[in-house]
Amino acid sequence: MSALSCRSVTVAAAAAEEELRRVFLQYGSSSVFLVEMTDPDRTVRSGPYQRVCLSETQLDFPGLPYSVSVLKPGFCSAHTDGTFRADGTISLVTGPKTVLVDTGGPWDRDFLLQSLEDRGVGPGDIELVVGTHGHSDHVGNLNLFPSALMIVGHDVSEGDTYRPSQLAEGQTFIVDEHVSVLPTPGHTGQDVSVQVTGTSAGTVLIAGDLFESWSDEDTWRDLSMNTTVQEVSRQKALQTADVIIPGHGLPFRVLRN
Amino acid sequence: MSALSCRSVTVAAAAAEEELRRVFLQYGSSSVFLVEMTDPDRTVRSGPYQRVCLSETQLDFPGLPYSVSVLKPGFCSAHTDGTFRADGTISLVTGPKTVLVDTGGPWDRDFLLQSLEDRGVGPGDIELVVGTHGHSDHVGNLNLFPSALMIVGHDVSEGDTYRPSQLAEGQTFIVDEHVSVLPTPGHTGQDVSVQVTGTSAGTVLIAGDLFESWSDEDTWRDLSMNTTVQEVSRQKALQTADVIIPGHGLPFRVLRN
Repeated sequence: MSALSCRSVTVAAAAAEEELRRVFLQYGSSSVFLVEMTDPDRTVRSGPYQRVCLSETQLDFPGLPYSVSVLKPGFCSAHTDGTFRADGTISLVTGPKTVLVDTGGPWDRDFLLQSLEDRGVGPGDIELVVGTHGHSDHVGNLNLFPSALMIVGHDVSEGDTYRPSQLAEGQTFIVDEHVSVLPTPGHTGQDVSVQVTGTSAGTVLIAGDLFESWSDEDTWRDLSMNTTVQEVSRQKALQTADVIIPGHGLPFRVLRN
Repeated sequence: MSALSCRSVTVAAAAAEEELRRVFLQYGSSSVFLVEMTDPDRTVRSGPYQRVCLSETQLDFPGLPYSVSVLKPGFCSAHTDGTFRADGTISLVTGPKTVLVDTGGPWDRDFLLQSLEDRGVGPGDIELVVGTHGHSDHVGNLNLFPSALMIVGHDVSEGDTYRPSQLAEGQTFIVDEHVSVLPTPGHTGQDVSVQVTGTSAGTVLIAGDLFESWSDEDTWRDLSMNTTVQEVSRQKALQTADVIIPGHGLPFRVLRN
Protein backbone atom coordinates (compact mmCIF):
# COMPACT_ATOMS: atom_id res chain seq x y z
CA MET A 1 0.00 0.00 0.00
CA SER A 2 2.58 2.49 1.18
CA ALA A 3 0.18 5.32 1.71
CA LEU A 4 0.15 8.41 3.83
CA SER A 5 -3.50 8.57 3.15
CA CYS A 6 -6.05 6.41 1.44
CA ARG A 7 -9.38 7.71 0.33
CA SER A 8 -12.22 5.30 0.39
CA VAL A 9 -13.68 4.75 -3.05
CA THR A 10 -15.79 1.93 -1.75
CA VAL A 11 -18.74 4.10 -0.74
CA ALA A 12 -19.47 5.28 -4.28
CA ALA A 13 -18.80 1.81 -5.63
CA ALA A 14 -21.25 0.29 -3.16
CA ALA A 15 -23.96 2.74 -4.18
CA ALA A 16 -23.37 1.90 -7.82
CA GLU A 17 -23.45 -1.78 -7.02
CA GLU A 18 -26.81 -1.36 -5.30
CA GLU A 19 -28.19 0.48 -8.31
CA LEU A 20 -26.90 -2.31 -10.52
CA ARG A 21 -28.74 -4.89 -8.44
CA ARG A 22 -31.94 -2.87 -8.74
CA VAL A 23 -31.61 -2.77 -12.54
CA PHE A 24 -30.81 -6.46 -12.61
CA LEU A 25 -34.01 -7.27 -10.70
CA GLN A 26 -36.06 -4.97 -12.93
CA TYR A 27 -34.71 -5.88 -16.35
CA GLY A 28 -32.83 -9.18 -16.03
CA SER A 29 -29.18 -10.05 -16.35
CA SER A 30 -28.74 -9.25 -20.05
CA SER A 31 -29.36 -5.60 -19.30
CA VAL A 32 -26.76 -5.54 -16.58
CA PHE A 33 -23.90 -5.74 -19.04
CA LEU A 34 -25.25 -2.74 -20.96
CA VAL A 35 -25.76 -0.83 -17.76
CA GLU A 36 -22.19 -1.57 -16.76
CA MET A 37 -20.98 -0.15 -20.03
CA THR A 38 -22.88 3.07 -19.63
CA ASP A 39 -23.69 3.60 -15.95
CA PRO A 40 -21.85 6.80 -15.09
CA ASP A 41 -21.49 5.70 -11.49
CA ARG A 42 -19.41 2.74 -12.64
CA THR A 43 -17.57 4.46 -15.46
CA VAL A 44 -14.72 6.94 -15.52
CA ARG A 45 -13.22 8.50 -18.61
CA SER A 46 -9.55 9.36 -18.85
CA GLY A 47 -8.45 10.69 -22.22
CA PRO A 48 -9.50 8.22 -24.92
CA TYR A 49 -10.23 5.48 -22.39
CA GLN A 50 -13.28 4.56 -20.39
CA ARG A 51 -12.89 2.33 -17.36
CA VAL A 52 -15.94 0.35 -16.38
CA CYS A 53 -15.99 -1.37 -13.01
CA LEU A 54 -17.14 -4.98 -13.12
CA SER A 55 -19.40 -6.44 -10.47
CA GLU A 56 -18.35 -8.33 -7.38
CA THR A 57 -19.42 -11.56 -9.06
CA GLN A 58 -17.29 -11.04 -12.18
CA LEU A 59 -14.06 -12.35 -10.76
CA ASP A 60 -13.39 -15.19 -13.21
CA PHE A 61 -12.15 -14.77 -16.76
CA PRO A 62 -12.11 -18.21 -18.36
CA GLY A 63 -10.11 -18.84 -21.48
CA LEU A 64 -7.95 -21.13 -23.50
CA PRO A 65 -5.24 -21.89 -22.80
CA TYR A 66 -5.32 -19.63 -19.75
CA SER A 67 -8.01 -18.54 -17.30
CA VAL A 68 -7.70 -15.83 -14.68
CA SER A 69 -9.49 -15.82 -11.32
CA VAL A 70 -9.45 -13.14 -8.67
CA LEU A 71 -9.24 -15.06 -5.40
CA LYS A 72 -9.61 -11.93 -3.31
CA PRO A 73 -10.26 -8.42 -4.58
CA GLY A 74 -8.09 -5.97 -2.70
CA PHE A 75 -9.59 -3.05 -0.87
CA CYS A 76 -8.70 0.14 0.91
CA SER A 77 -10.96 2.02 3.29
CA ALA A 78 -9.98 5.00 5.36
CA HIS A 79 -10.93 5.41 9.01
CA THR A 80 -11.62 8.65 10.79
CA ASP A 81 -8.64 8.13 13.12
CA GLY A 82 -6.19 8.39 10.22
CA THR A 83 -5.62 4.66 9.89
CA PHE A 84 -6.94 2.63 7.02
CA ARG A 85 -7.74 -0.99 6.37
CA ALA A 86 -6.21 -2.43 3.22
CA ASP A 87 -5.38 -5.66 1.51
CA GLY A 88 -3.90 -6.43 -1.88
CA THR A 89 -5.71 -8.31 -4.62
CA ILE A 90 -4.78 -12.01 -4.97
CA SER A 91 -5.15 -13.59 -8.43
CA LEU A 92 -4.64 -17.05 -9.89
CA VAL A 93 -3.78 -17.87 -13.48
CA THR A 94 -4.47 -21.45 -14.54
CA GLY A 95 -3.58 -23.25 -17.75
CA PRO A 96 -0.36 -24.84 -18.99
CA LYS A 97 1.33 -23.06 -16.08
CA THR A 98 -0.20 -22.25 -12.70
CA VAL A 99 0.68 -18.74 -11.61
CA LEU A 100 -0.22 -16.91 -8.41
CA VAL A 101 -0.08 -13.14 -8.63
CA ASP A 102 0.38 -11.52 -5.24
CA THR A 103 -0.13 -13.37 -1.98
CA GLY A 104 -2.05 -10.86 0.12
CA GLY A 105 -1.04 -9.66 3.55
CA PRO A 106 0.54 -11.79 6.30
CA TRP A 107 -2.94 -12.30 7.76
CA ASP A 108 -4.16 -13.99 4.55
CA ARG A 109 -2.27 -17.28 5.03
CA ASP A 110 -5.23 -19.49 5.89
CA PHE A 111 -7.55 -17.73 3.45
CA LEU A 112 -5.09 -18.22 0.62
CA LEU A 113 -4.51 -21.90 1.33
CA GLN A 114 -8.25 -22.52 1.59
CA SER A 115 -9.01 -20.53 -1.52
CA LEU A 116 -6.49 -22.53 -3.52
CA GLU A 117 -7.80 -25.79 -2.08
CA ASP A 118 -11.35 -24.82 -3.10
CA ARG A 119 -10.04 -24.74 -6.66
CA GLY A 120 -8.19 -28.03 -6.33
CA VAL A 121 -4.81 -26.31 -6.26
CA GLY A 122 -2.22 -27.22 -3.66
CA PRO A 123 0.63 -24.84 -2.76
CA GLY A 124 3.02 -27.22 -4.49
CA ASP A 125 1.05 -26.87 -7.74
CA ILE A 126 1.96 -23.19 -8.02
CA GLU A 127 4.83 -23.02 -10.50
CA LEU A 128 5.33 -19.27 -10.55
CA VAL A 129 4.60 -16.72 -7.83
CA VAL A 130 4.68 -13.08 -8.87
CA GLY A 131 4.81 -10.38 -6.22
CA THR A 132 3.89 -7.23 -8.14
CA HIS A 133 5.87 -5.15 -5.63
CA GLY A 134 7.37 -5.57 -2.18
CA HIS A 135 4.68 -4.10 0.04
CA SER A 136 3.44 -6.13 2.97
CA ASP A 137 -0.15 -6.42 1.71
CA HIS A 138 1.08 -8.12 -1.47
CA VAL A 139 4.01 -10.31 -0.39
CA GLY A 140 2.82 -11.51 3.01
CA ASN A 141 2.80 -15.23 2.21
CA LEU A 142 5.77 -15.98 -0.01
CA ASN A 143 6.87 -18.85 2.20
CA LEU A 144 3.84 -20.97 1.25
CA PHE A 145 5.54 -21.54 -2.11
CA PRO A 146 9.20 -22.29 -1.45
CA SER A 147 9.55 -24.53 -4.52
CA ALA A 148 7.99 -22.10 -7.01
CA LEU A 149 9.85 -19.84 -9.38
CA MET A 150 9.44 -16.46 -7.75
CA ILE A 151 9.38 -13.01 -9.26
CA VAL A 152 9.10 -10.25 -6.69
CA GLY A 153 9.52 -6.86 -8.28
CA HIS A 154 12.59 -7.24 -10.47
CA ASP A 155 14.05 -10.24 -8.64
CA VAL A 156 13.72 -13.69 -10.19
CA SER A 157 14.62 -16.60 -7.91
CA GLU A 158 14.31 -20.33 -7.35
CA GLY A 159 15.00 -21.03 -3.72
CA ASP A 160 18.00 -18.91 -2.80
CA THR A 161 19.34 -18.90 -6.35
CA TYR A 162 18.69 -15.63 -8.12
CA ARG A 163 18.66 -15.50 -11.92
CA PRO A 164 19.65 -12.55 -14.00
CA SER A 165 16.64 -10.79 -15.52
CA GLN A 166 16.21 -7.70 -17.63
CA LEU A 167 13.07 -6.48 -15.88
CA ALA A 168 15.01 -3.54 -14.45
CA GLU A 169 15.96 -2.58 -18.01
CA GLY A 170 12.33 -2.56 -19.04
CA GLN A 171 12.28 -5.93 -20.78
CA THR A 172 9.40 -8.34 -20.46
CA PHE A 173 9.83 -11.70 -18.72
CA ILE A 174 8.09 -14.14 -21.04
CA VAL A 175 6.51 -17.18 -19.38
CA ASP A 176 5.07 -18.47 -22.62
CA GLU A 177 3.12 -17.27 -25.65
CA HIS A 178 0.18 -16.14 -23.52
CA VAL A 179 1.60 -15.12 -20.15
CA SER A 180 4.25 -12.52 -19.50
CA VAL A 181 5.53 -10.36 -16.68
CA LEU A 182 5.85 -6.69 -17.62
CA PRO A 183 7.82 -3.99 -15.82
CA THR A 184 5.25 -1.35 -14.83
CA PRO A 185 7.16 0.96 -12.47
CA GLY A 186 5.95 4.02 -10.65
CA HIS A 187 4.07 2.98 -7.52
CA THR A 188 7.47 1.72 -6.39
CA GLY A 189 10.60 1.62 -8.47
CA GLN A 190 10.32 -2.09 -9.21
CA ASP A 191 6.68 -2.90 -9.95
CA VAL A 192 5.66 -5.61 -12.38
CA SER A 193 2.29 -6.71 -13.81
CA VAL A 194 1.21 -10.02 -15.30
CA GLN A 195 -0.41 -9.98 -18.73
CA VAL A 196 -2.58 -12.91 -19.87
CA THR A 197 -3.83 -12.93 -23.46
CA GLY A 198 -6.62 -14.98 -25.01
CA THR A 199 -9.17 -15.07 -22.22
CA SER A 200 -12.88 -14.72 -22.93
CA ALA A 201 -12.54 -11.11 -21.81
CA GLY A 202 -9.52 -10.53 -24.03
CA THR A 203 -6.19 -9.45 -22.60
CA VAL A 204 -6.20 -9.34 -18.80
CA LEU A 205 -3.58 -7.32 -16.93
CA ILE A 206 -3.04 -8.16 -13.27
CA ALA A 207 -1.56 -4.84 -12.36
CA GLY A 208 -0.79 -4.65 -8.65
CA ASP A 209 -0.86 -1.05 -7.48
CA LEU A 210 -0.22 0.37 -10.94
CA PHE A 211 -3.96 0.96 -10.54
CA GLU A 212 -5.38 1.20 -7.04
CA SER A 213 -8.96 0.74 -8.30
CA TRP A 214 -11.14 1.45 -11.32
CA SER A 215 -11.68 5.05 -10.13
CA ASP A 216 -8.33 6.01 -8.67
CA GLU A 217 -7.62 9.20 -10.61
CA ASP A 218 -7.64 11.30 -7.45
CA THR A 219 -5.78 8.81 -5.26
CA TRP A 220 -2.98 6.99 -7.10
CA ARG A 221 -0.58 9.92 -7.17
CA ASP A 222 -0.58 10.14 -3.37
CA LEU A 223 0.63 6.54 -3.27
CA SER A 224 3.20 6.78 -6.05
CA MET A 225 6.95 6.99 -5.70
CA ASN A 226 7.23 8.43 -9.21
CA THR A 227 4.05 9.79 -10.76
CA THR A 228 5.67 10.60 -14.12
CA VAL A 229 6.95 7.08 -14.57
CA GLN A 230 3.71 5.57 -13.27
CA GLU A 231 1.61 7.66 -15.65
CA VAL A 232 3.59 6.22 -18.57
CA SER A 233 3.08 2.69 -17.22
CA ARG A 234 -0.66 3.34 -16.79
CA GLN A 235 -1.09 4.69 -20.30
CA LYS A 236 0.63 1.63 -21.77
CA ALA A 237 -1.67 -0.61 -19.75
CA LEU A 238 -4.79 1.25 -20.90
CA GLN A 239 -3.62 0.95 -24.52
CA THR A 240 -3.31 -2.82 -24.45
CA ALA A 241 -5.49 -4.41 -21.73
CA ASP A 242 -9.17 -5.25 -22.09
CA VAL A 243 -9.56 -5.98 -18.39
CA ILE A 244 -7.32 -4.64 -15.62
CA ILE A 245 -7.22 -6.21 -12.17
CA PRO A 246 -6.10 -3.44 -9.81
CA GLY A 247 -4.34 -3.82 -6.48
CA HIS A 248 -7.12 -2.52 -4.26
CA GLY A 249 -10.45 -2.89 -6.01
CA LEU A 250 -12.64 -4.85 -8.39
CA PRO A 251 -11.53 -5.67 -11.93
CA PHE A 252 -12.49 -3.12 -14.57
CA ARG A 253 -13.00 -3.21 -18.28
CA VAL A 254 -11.12 -0.77 -20.55
CA LEU A 255 -13.03 0.68 -23.47
CA ARG A 256 -11.06 2.50 -26.15
CA ASN A 257 -12.70 4.99 -28.47
CA MET B 1 18.85 -8.39 -3.26
CA SER B 2 17.69 -6.98 -6.57
CA ALA B 3 20.96 -7.46 -8.33
CA LEU B 4 22.01 -7.83 -11.89
CA SER B 5 25.33 -8.99 -10.59
CA CYS B 6 26.77 -9.87 -7.23
CA ARG B 7 30.44 -10.26 -6.54
CA SER B 8 31.52 -12.69 -3.92
CA VAL B 9 33.44 -11.10 -1.11
CA THR B 10 33.37 -14.27 0.88
CA VAL B 11 36.63 -15.73 -0.48
CA ALA B 12 38.80 -12.92 0.83
CA ALA B 13 36.85 -12.90 4.08
CA ALA B 14 37.41 -16.62 4.57
CA ALA B 15 41.16 -16.24 4.05
CA ALA B 16 41.26 -13.42 6.57
CA GLU B 17 39.23 -15.51 8.98
CA GLU B 18 41.74 -18.36 8.72
CA GLU B 19 44.62 -15.97 9.39
CA LEU B 20 42.73 -14.67 12.42
CA ARG B 21 42.35 -18.17 13.80
CA ARG B 22 46.10 -18.77 13.37
CA VAL B 23 46.93 -15.59 15.32
CA PHE B 24 44.40 -16.53 17.97
CA LEU B 25 46.08 -19.90 18.51
CA GLN B 26 49.54 -18.32 18.60
CA TYR B 27 48.89 -15.29 20.82
CA GLY B 28 45.59 -15.83 22.60
CA SER B 29 42.28 -14.09 22.38
CA SER B 30 43.35 -10.65 23.58
CA SER B 31 45.49 -10.25 20.52
CA VAL B 32 42.67 -11.15 18.22
CA PHE B 33 40.87 -7.91 18.89
CA LEU B 34 44.00 -5.95 18.01
CA VAL B 35 44.49 -7.99 14.88
CA GLU B 36 40.89 -7.30 13.88
CA MET B 37 41.48 -3.62 14.31
CA THR B 38 44.52 -3.57 12.08
CA ASP B 39 44.45 -6.61 9.79
CA PRO B 40 44.27 -5.06 6.31
CA ASP B 41 42.44 -8.10 4.98
CA ARG B 42 39.58 -7.39 7.37
CA THR B 43 39.67 -3.62 7.23
CA VAL B 44 38.59 -1.12 4.62
CA ARG B 45 38.93 2.64 4.85
CA SER B 46 36.40 5.00 3.37
CA GLY B 47 37.06 8.67 4.10
CA PRO B 48 37.39 9.15 7.84
CA TYR B 49 35.94 5.73 8.60
CA GLN B 50 37.47 2.29 8.92
CA ARG B 51 35.24 -0.73 8.70
CA VAL B 52 36.49 -3.83 10.45
CA CYS B 53 34.78 -7.13 9.76
CA LEU B 54 33.95 -9.12 12.86
CA SER B 55 34.37 -12.88 13.01
CA GLU B 56 31.71 -15.47 12.31
CA THR B 57 31.45 -16.09 16.04
CA GLN B 58 30.78 -12.45 16.93
CA LEU B 59 27.09 -12.47 16.23
CA ASP B 60 25.78 -11.45 19.66
CA PHE B 61 25.90 -7.97 21.12
CA PRO B 62 24.57 -8.18 24.66
CA GLY B 63 23.44 -5.08 26.46
CA LEU B 64 21.05 -3.43 28.83
CA PRO B 65 18.26 -2.93 28.26
CA TYR B 66 18.63 -4.33 24.74
CA SER B 67 20.74 -7.08 23.18
CA VAL B 68 21.15 -7.77 19.49
CA SER B 69 21.74 -11.20 17.96
CA VAL B 70 22.33 -12.08 14.34
CA LEU B 71 20.33 -15.26 13.80
CA LYS B 72 21.64 -15.72 10.28
CA PRO B 73 24.28 -13.61 8.56
CA GLY B 74 23.21 -12.93 4.99
CA PHE B 75 25.43 -13.85 2.09
CA CYS B 76 25.80 -13.43 -1.62
CA SER B 77 27.97 -15.58 -3.85
CA ALA B 78 28.11 -15.39 -7.63
CA HIS B 79 28.12 -18.46 -9.86
CA THR B 80 29.84 -18.78 -13.19
CA ASP B 81 26.51 -19.28 -14.98
CA GLY B 82 25.39 -15.77 -14.10
CA THR B 83 23.12 -16.78 -11.22
CA PHE B 84 23.97 -16.12 -7.62
CA ARG B 85 22.98 -17.53 -4.29
CA ALA B 86 21.84 -14.99 -1.73
CA ASP B 87 20.01 -14.61 1.51
CA GLY B 88 19.32 -11.65 3.73
CA THR B 89 20.58 -11.25 7.27
CA ILE B 90 18.06 -12.06 10.03
CA SER B 91 18.51 -10.29 13.38
CA LEU B 92 16.74 -10.38 16.74
CA VAL B 93 16.59 -7.56 19.27
CA THR B 94 15.63 -8.60 22.79
CA GLY B 95 14.86 -6.47 25.82
CA PRO B 96 11.74 -4.62 26.93
CA LYS B 97 10.48 -5.22 23.38
CA THR B 98 11.23 -8.21 21.17
CA VAL B 99 11.97 -7.12 17.63
CA LEU B 100 12.77 -9.23 14.57
CA VAL B 101 14.61 -7.42 11.81
CA ASP B 102 14.14 -9.08 8.43
CA THR B 103 12.76 -12.57 8.05
CA GLY B 104 15.04 -14.08 5.40
CA GLY B 105 13.90 -15.67 2.16
CA PRO B 106 10.78 -17.85 1.73
CA TRP B 107 13.00 -20.91 2.16
CA ASP B 108 14.02 -19.81 5.69
CA ARG B 109 10.70 -20.59 7.38
CA ASP B 110 11.80 -23.65 9.34
CA PHE B 111 15.25 -22.23 10.08
CA LEU B 112 13.72 -19.07 11.47
CA LEU B 113 11.22 -20.85 13.70
CA GLN B 114 13.92 -23.19 15.02
CA SER B 115 16.38 -20.37 15.55
CA LEU B 116 13.82 -18.43 17.59
CA GLU B 117 12.89 -21.54 19.55
CA ASP B 118 16.57 -22.13 20.37
CA ARG B 119 16.49 -18.74 22.09
CA GLY B 120 13.24 -19.47 23.88
CA VAL B 121 11.28 -17.11 21.65
CA GLY B 122 7.99 -18.15 20.08
CA PRO B 123 6.61 -16.41 16.99
CA GLY B 124 3.91 -14.89 19.18
CA ASP B 125 6.58 -13.29 21.37
CA ILE B 126 7.73 -11.07 18.51
CA GLU B 127 6.12 -7.67 19.10
CA LEU B 128 7.60 -5.83 16.15
CA VAL B 129 8.75 -7.17 12.79
CA VAL B 130 10.79 -4.83 10.63
CA GLY B 131 11.35 -5.65 6.98
CA THR B 132 14.16 -3.33 5.98
CA HIS B 133 12.91 -3.37 2.36
CA GLY B 134 10.54 -5.40 0.24
CA HIS B 135 12.91 -7.82 -1.48
CA SER B 136 12.12 -11.50 -1.35
CA ASP B 137 15.26 -12.47 0.57
CA HIS B 138 14.26 -10.15 3.42
CA VAL B 139 10.46 -10.42 3.66
CA GLY B 140 9.93 -14.09 2.85
CA ASN B 141 8.30 -15.05 6.16
CA LEU B 142 6.07 -12.20 7.25
CA ASN B 143 3.13 -14.54 7.81
CA LEU B 144 4.82 -16.20 10.79
CA PHE B 145 4.03 -13.06 12.78
CA PRO B 146 0.47 -12.03 11.98
CA SER B 147 -0.11 -10.47 15.40
CA ALA B 148 3.04 -8.35 15.47
CA LEU B 149 3.27 -4.69 14.67
CA MET B 150 4.87 -4.72 11.25
CA ILE B 151 7.04 -2.14 9.56
CA VAL B 152 7.99 -3.08 6.00
CA GLY B 153 9.77 -0.25 4.30
CA HIS B 154 7.63 2.78 5.04
CA ASP B 155 4.43 0.87 5.83
CA VAL B 156 3.38 0.44 9.46
CA SER B 157 0.58 -2.05 10.06
CA GLU B 158 -1.17 -4.19 12.63
CA GLY B 159 -3.05 -6.89 10.80
CA ASP B 160 -4.71 -5.20 7.86
CA THR B 161 -4.87 -1.83 9.62
CA TYR B 162 -2.22 0.56 8.36
CA ARG B 163 -1.12 3.44 10.52
CA PRO B 164 0.10 6.78 9.27
CA SER B 165 3.86 7.18 9.65
CA GLN B 166 6.32 9.85 8.69
CA LEU B 167 9.06 7.45 7.57
CA ALA B 168 8.55 8.57 3.96
CA GLU B 169 9.21 12.15 5.09
CA GLY B 170 12.49 11.10 6.68
CA GLN B 171 11.27 10.99 10.26
CA THR B 172 12.36 8.31 12.69
CA PHE B 173 9.85 5.79 14.08
CA ILE B 174 10.69 5.66 17.78
CA VAL B 175 10.04 2.33 19.50
CA ASP B 176 11.44 3.54 22.81
CA GLU B 177 14.45 5.36 24.21
CA HIS B 178 16.87 2.75 22.87
CA VAL B 179 15.32 1.32 19.72
CA SER B 180 14.25 3.25 16.65
CA VAL B 181 13.53 2.65 12.99
CA LEU B 182 15.36 5.05 10.68
CA PRO B 183 14.60 5.82 7.06
CA THR B 184 17.77 4.89 5.14
CA PRO B 185 16.73 5.02 1.49
CA GLY B 186 18.76 4.32 -1.60
CA HIS B 187 18.97 0.57 -2.18
CA THR B 188 15.24 0.87 -2.79
CA GLY B 189 13.17 3.99 -2.33
CA GLN B 190 11.74 2.86 0.99
CA ASP B 191 14.53 1.25 3.03
CA VAL B 192 14.66 1.45 6.80
CA SER B 193 17.25 0.40 9.38
CA VAL B 194 16.90 -0.42 13.06
CA GLN B 195 19.14 1.39 15.52
CA VAL B 196 19.78 -0.05 18.98
CA THR B 197 21.75 2.03 21.49
CA GLY B 198 23.45 0.96 24.69
CA THR B 199 24.75 -2.49 23.78
CA SER B 200 28.18 -3.65 24.95
CA ALA B 201 29.41 -2.81 21.45
CA GLY B 202 27.80 0.62 21.54
CA THR B 203 25.21 1.66 18.98
CA VAL B 204 24.28 -1.18 16.62
CA LEU B 205 22.63 -0.43 13.29
CA ILE B 206 20.77 -3.29 11.59
CA ALA B 207 20.99 -1.85 8.14
CA GLY B 208 19.47 -4.21 5.58
CA ASP B 209 21.02 -3.62 2.18
CA LEU B 210 22.11 -0.10 2.99
CA PHE B 211 25.37 -2.01 3.31
CA GLU B 212 25.75 -5.29 1.42
CA SER B 213 28.79 -6.30 3.47
CA TRP B 214 31.75 -4.81 5.32
CA SER B 215 33.68 -4.45 2.03
CA ASP B 216 31.01 -3.48 -0.47
CA GLU B 217 32.55 -0.32 -1.90
CA ASP B 218 32.78 -1.82 -5.38
CA THR B 219 29.41 -3.61 -5.31
CA TRP B 220 26.69 -1.60 -3.58
CA ARG B 221 26.18 0.89 -6.40
CA ASP B 222 25.28 -1.91 -8.83
CA LEU B 223 22.46 -2.89 -6.47
CA SER B 224 21.21 0.61 -5.69
CA MET B 225 18.12 2.30 -7.08
CA ASN B 226 19.55 5.71 -6.15
CA THR B 227 23.26 5.87 -5.41
CA THR B 228 23.23 9.56 -4.46
CA VAL B 229 20.53 9.06 -1.86
CA GLN B 230 22.08 5.83 -0.61
CA GLU B 231 25.50 7.46 -0.23
CA VAL B 232 23.94 10.06 2.08
CA SER B 233 22.24 7.30 4.09
CA ARG B 234 25.51 5.37 4.33
CA GLN B 235 27.47 8.39 5.53
CA LYS B 236 24.91 9.08 8.25
CA ALA B 237 25.15 5.47 9.36
CA LEU B 238 28.95 5.56 9.48
CA GLN B 239 28.81 8.76 11.54
CA THR B 240 26.66 7.26 14.27
CA ALA B 241 26.92 3.46 14.44
CA ASP B 242 29.63 1.54 16.27
CA VAL B 243 28.61 -1.77 14.73
CA ILE B 244 26.71 -2.19 11.48
CA ILE B 245 24.91 -5.41 10.58
CA PRO B 246 24.74 -5.47 6.78
CA GLY B 247 22.21 -7.28 4.61
CA HIS B 248 24.56 -9.81 3.05
CA GLY B 249 27.59 -10.30 5.26
CA LEU B 250 29.04 -10.41 8.74
CA PRO B 251 28.67 -7.52 11.19
CA PHE B 252 31.43 -4.93 11.07
CA ARG B 253 32.80 -2.39 13.48
CA VAL B 254 33.07 1.27 12.49
CA LEU B 255 36.15 3.16 13.63
CA ARG B 256 36.16 6.92 13.32
CA ASN B 257 39.38 8.91 13.24
